[in-house]
Amino acid sequence: MFPYKTSFQIDRKTNQALYLQLSNQFIQLIKERKLVPETKLPGSRVLSELLGVHRKTIVACYEELLLQGWVESVPKKGTFVNSKLPKLNQQSFNADKEILLKESVGFQFYKNYDLERKYFKHQDGFMYLNDGVSDARLTPTEDLARTYRRICSRKNIYEEMSYGSLFGNEKLRNTLANYLNKTRGLNINKDNILITRGSQMGIFLSAKLLLQKEDTIIVGKTNYTSADATFLQTKANLLRVTVDENGLVSDEIEQICQQQSIKGVYVTSHHHHPTTVTLSAERRIHLLNLSKKYNFAIIEDDYDYDFNYNHSPILPLASHDTNGNVIYIGSVCKTVAPVYRIGYLIAAKEFVNEAAKHRRFIDRQGDALLELAFEDFIKSGDLDRHINKVMKVYKARRDLFCQLLKEKFSDVFSFEIPKGGMAVWLKLNDNYSWETIAEIARKYKLEIGEWQRYDNADLGHNSIRIGFATYNEEEIYELISRLSRTIEEIKN
Amino acid sequence: MFPYKTSFQIDRKTNQALYLQLSNQFIQLIKERKLVPETKLPGSRVLSELLGVHRKTIVACYEELLLQGWVESVPKKGTFVNSKLPKLNQQSFNADKEILLKESVGFQFYKNYDLERKYFKHQDGFMYLNDGVSDARLTPTEDLARTYRRICSRKNIYEEMSYGSLFGNEKLRNTLANYLNKTRGLNINKDNILITRGSQMGIFLSAKLLLQKEDTIIVGKTNYTSADATFLQTKANLLRVTVDENGLVSDEIEQICQQQSIKGVYVTSHHHHPTTVTLSAERRIHLLNLSKKYNFAIIEDDYDYDFNYNHSPILPLASHDTNGNVIYIGSVCKTVAPVYRIGYLIAAKEFVNEAAKHRRFIDRQGDALLELAFEDFIKSGDLDRHINKVMKVYKARRDLFCQLLKEKFSDVFSFEIPKGGMAVWLKLNDNYSWETIAEIARKYKLEIGEWQRYDNADLGHNSIRIGFATYNEEEIYELISRLSRTIEEIKN
Repeated sequence: MFPYKTSFQIDRKTNQALYLQLSNQFIQLIKERKLVPETKLPGSRVLSELLGVHRKTIVACYEELLLQGWVESVPKKGTFVNSKLPKLNQQSFNADKEILLKESVGFQFYKNYDLERKYFKHQDGFMYLNDGVSDARLTPTEDLARTYRRICSRKNIYEEMSYGSLFGNEKLRNTLANYLNKTRGLNINKDNILITRGSQMGIFLSAKLLLQKEDTIIVGKTNYTSADATFLQTKANLLRVTVDENGLVSDEIEQICQQQSIKGVYVTSHHHHPTTVTLSAERRIHLLNLSKKYNFAIIEDDYDYDFNYNHSPILPLASHDTNGNVIYIGSVCKTVAPVYRIGYLIAAKEFVNEAAKHRRFIDRQGDALLELAFEDFIKSGDLDRHINKVMKVYKARRDLFCQLLKEKFSDVFSFEIPKGGMAVWLKLNDNYSWETIAEIARKYKLEIGEWQRYDNADLGHNSIRIGFATYNEEEIYELISRLSRTIEEIKN
Repeated sequence: MFPYKTSFQIDRKTNQALYLQLSNQFIQLIKERKLVPETKLPGSRVLSELLGVHRKTIVACYEELLLQGWVESVPKKGTFVNSKLPKLNQQSFNADKEILLKESVGFQFYKNYDLERKYFKHQDGFMYLNDGVSDARLTPTEDLARTYRRICSRKNIYEEMSYGSLFGNEKLRNTLANYLNKTRGLNINKDNILITRGSQMGIFLSAKLLLQKEDTIIVGKTNYTSADATFLQTKANLLRVTVDENGLVSDEIEQICQQQSIKGVYVTSHHHHPTTVTLSAERRIHLLNLSKKYNFAIIEDDYDYDFNYNHSPILPLASHDTNGNVIYIGSVCKTVAPVYRIGYLIAAKEFVNEAAKHRRFIDRQGDALLELAFEDFIKSGDLDRHINKVMKVYKARRDLFCQLLKEKFSDVFSFEIPKGGMAVWLKLNDNYSWETIAEIARKYKLEIGEWQRYDNADLGHNSIRIGFATYNEEEIYELISRLSRTIEEIKN
């Protein structure tokens, strides 16, 4: 008889049911042809004594093997290893203890080398630059969680828990429409809104609907890198125009339009990413007129509308859009915290409907519970209170950061004090290079990050975008100190 | 002088700031060329008296117009409508009170008619069939919300609130790896997992990495419609093979492989969608061997692994995958509730890494707070307790539903009692048609839904998939009753 007693190992410490452990090991023995087809297995009582387990365990084990088709039960005769199993390839099962899902796959797939981004693993004691993200420590996390819980306790909340709207929770869309109409001069209703997982999904869907191979989209010579990458993935052409102190140079756009047809223009109108400049009123009207004349879309990514220090924000292009040319994208991520991926894509109804259709096959729907929590957050005025609170903090941080930059580095860096947003566009004196700074800075535990991404078009502007909002006062001093030591070393 | 007094309307009831209302109306007047370039605007005191507002309001209004570039300030002279504005197209601004973002856009975009799905608007008093979704009323919503809140109160929670991992929260991935290794016989670690927004995102990403135009993927002649649609969007070819009582006929797959190269096979191994049959052990080994021999991927969508009534579930193909051919997709949606879009894509590390790179440009990252809540839910054993609880309920509902179907409709319907899952595959006697049933059923306030989607390949099997899990006992009786009246009417 096959050496059953020594061929099985039982681990009573693990959570896994004994019968399952045994059936797995049976399967392995059958695959390895140590138990060949048509072998008669011992009766359950016999095997239970051999292995020192309850008879029920063997019965369950055999049932499992039967159900899976590894054994067959012949009435009045017994249980046999199934005669109908295909011949197994011996080689495949040598390494039966190896990680089944290892490093590499057994098939071909498409790799996209354009999508490579550098990720800097977090090391203790290091400070990391960012391109302007909010300070998560200021997020009203507990308030939102309390609201979330309150919503989950509602009597009929189960109505929101199943498969629902592709467009996002209707209550949130209504509240958002009112809120944006009031604060941004829009004139929309809930049917103009698709709630997305942050702005990125809005950009992704817009690209999907606008661009295919051989289509053209216009962006700035400096541009938000993720937008570039998203557009490039559609295999469309990126045409770049100059960005000056008033934003995209619309005259260049006009010249392009006179030569060829374009599908759209991507613009971060309020604060250009990465240079932080604001698109002037004149350029806005020009761009809107061009879009009407040449029938292209304007993807307006209004990622940090709420952060404006000197005055109220400038109304977006979407507020002057009478012809339905603007796809208006925004989110609460920059305003609240990136973990809350509640964003919106706003456009004429027919575009929103098509975007929703595509969305179904990406993630099927949003998180209705989180959407309801944010509906409450907006409607109650909490969002505005939060914005007012962090604005004061960020303004103070901006002031300190810019003051120190000016005091210490006026011969090395030049910049405009940003009127809004969470970052500074910092130009480095051409006698220096960011490559060197990045290298030396690591010695002082300062990680500059992927500075090359701010010059996708290879203009040699020698500038990067530095976010100041995540650092409190003490951290700003520390950041400047490390930068200072870095610059000192380079000078010597 | 321009009739300022009568040209402006102030609404003190709305939330919108007065100076913003006025500046918006100024802008409109300038656009409509009612106030032409170089017009001198009244002094702030004069205008404030004319309009009956505080002087500060006018000052703020003029500052806003200045910032936006609509007016210019000439020292010692006054404020003038900007001389440098481009000529405006009169026609565009006639309908200034129209919804700016209307029905239709001012540009061209791609419309995909394959993505049309019917959505049945919810009408009072109606009962709706579904293809097997969980009963949201059984979801432990408050428990999860309590856990969510507890997590949000943690001292260092802000560390999870910013831009984080593309792969999903590491703690969840570790816990999930342990859990799946124990319960599904996998042998993975956290690096083999990408947390996705439900299974759909897993299918979407897999399609993106595997398929481009002219690639081929094999699916069943009956198949999960959303998977079909997702694959078709890549412009790849769908080749269909027969599905019998043992699942996909692997011999047909072998024949195809001998003729042409294929990129993958999509399989819902545990319970085929829509027919509910289980892929036999023999077919599983055959399919795995074929994938190794012909280097294709197996996308194993294990959407309802946990629901098995007679015995423990059958281990997935992924548990026997020594060569890295299987992309294992699953989610907690079917087990808990569709609103919680926590799913996973599991494969060899290199594939998961590439999928994560793409994910960045879709929604950037998941919801780390919800992921942590589910980590706790799984680790504490709550998930398993929930599964055990609902399994009993669903089994009873299955039994009742099937018993009534047999009692009342044995001459009309035929079916196998499903060993697991939340739906029945119901074949209709060929003397009848679902089209007629759907039409008549509406009179009895029963919506059959989009029955055609179960026969994508036009086989004429005259069957649909009906979910029973969402209905309690009373509702099952009511459903059967309405179906009964429908069938009665058709018979007469």
